[in-house]
Amino acid sequence: MYFGDTAHLPYGDKSKDSIKLYSKRISDFLIGKGCKAIVIACNTASAHAYKDVSQRHPGIPVLNVIDPTVDYCSKKFKEGKIGIIATKGTIKSRIYPRKIHKHRKELKVAQQATPLLAPMIEEGYFDNNISRTIIGSYLAAKNFKGMDALILACTHYPLIKPEVEEVLDGVEVIDSATVVASELEKLLRRKKLLKENGRSTKRFFVSDYTRSFEETSKLFFGKEIQLKEDRIWD
Amino acid sequence: MYFGDTAHLPYGDKSKDSIKLYSKRISDFLIGKGCKAIVIACNTASAHAYKDVSQRHPGIPVLNVIDPTVDYCSKKFKEGKIGIIATKGTIKSRIYPRKIHKHRKELKVAQQATPLLAPMIEEGYFDNNISRTIIGSYLAAKNFKGMDALILACTHYPLIKPEVEEVLDGVEVIDSATVVASELEKLLRRKKLLKENGRSTKRFFVSDYTRSFEETSKLFFGKEIQLKEDRIWD
Repeated sequence: MYFGDTAHLPYGDKSKDSIKLYSKRISDFLIGKGCKAIVIACNTASAHAYKDVSQRHPGIPVLNVIDPTVDYCSKKFKEGKIGIIATKGTIKSRIYPRKIHKHRKELKVAQQATPLLAPMIEEGYFDNNISRTIIGSYLAAKNFKGMDALILACTHYPLIKPEVEEVLDGVEVIDSATVVASELEKLLRRKKLLKENGRSTKRFFVSDYTRSFEETSKLFFGKEIQLKEDRIWD
Repeated sequence: MYFGDTAHLPYGDKSKDSIKLYSKRISDFLIGKGCKAIVIACNTASAHAYKDVSQRHPGIPVLNVIDPTVDYCSKKFKEGKIGIIATKGTIKSRIYPRKIHKHRKELKVAQQATPLLAPMIEEGYFDNNISRTIIGSYLAAKNFKGMDALILACTHYPLIKPEVEEVLDGVEVIDSATVVASELEKLLRRKKLLKENGRSTKRFFVSDYTRSFEETSKLFFGKEIQLKEDRIWD
């Protein structure tokens, strides 16, 4: 079950207090619908609201998209430089450097806010002249020189992974989706919450329905989606 | 008195129903603070919510940013082609072609949604390599060929007017700000509501305070601004 907060999207430039408030209300909505675990599938919300959401639902496993990615990185890289690209909110929180340095003091971490990438991807601009200029300009940042890996620290960015890899020949480009999904599977199995067989159903909710967002959703999901509006704020 | 709905910003891709709801609540807030007239200083909200806001406050002059601009255009151009750039919401509403054709059937109107321009400007990206690529790519649209004037149909766009003029050598680039301000002055004078002398005070409210939006506001206003948060939605 997916909830997209289209009434307040994008989160990258909202205040910490608002992100907390929105995330708590969305988690209440999902729990009310019978969800057995929650993934905060947004880096900005993971940075600002993970603690509040976990504390609000103590019996429910809550995953963010940052910790599993940091764990993966710290296991794989013992030295060298890790680059981070993300929204302004995530970069300003310094959550990636702080968490990486808790595991591995020796790793250098270079950050760069890339605020145009999320709107660019939402508008379906990739693999063209505009996206190449924007991506190229961001990745040319001086402090990225000589990095060993780059974390795509926004859940929009997997869609431009091939373009980023093309620019950064030889640098490992890490996106959190696969890492987090595998972590969730392990967690559910450990807690005996994993449904190993039978049909699975998928439901998609948004706080403000637009045809245009439904189109964008298809880009991410890879197939047809029907969004249902639930105006939990009005 | 200014109210910026930063909790829901940007409006360009929100639903019509949400824009109406937000605009009505903001107009109530402004009237509650003693405003004597309202300017809906956003093209998307002008397209979707002008009628609702006017009807809600029958004794108060309400101006949108579209009608004065269309009037200016129809007086100045009797034939030829007018280009429009705006958010997806404004373009899809077809409000500019419809209103222009009510005045002048002979004018050709060419539209182009330019969804990356507002985020680009909000992030302070102008007069650089990224902005030149994005602007150049949008203005190269085939149906803009041979146009006589281009309306910047989003209240963000005046900040890139010089760059647009450079690309469109010889085409008149029209932004609504001056036209609407002069229209408001005339209206207030006619209704004997104009305060002709004495000090004026300026107050700026937002629905979600962030330091980053305060920085962006300065770009638009041209000098220091202090934003006050009023969470009219929580």
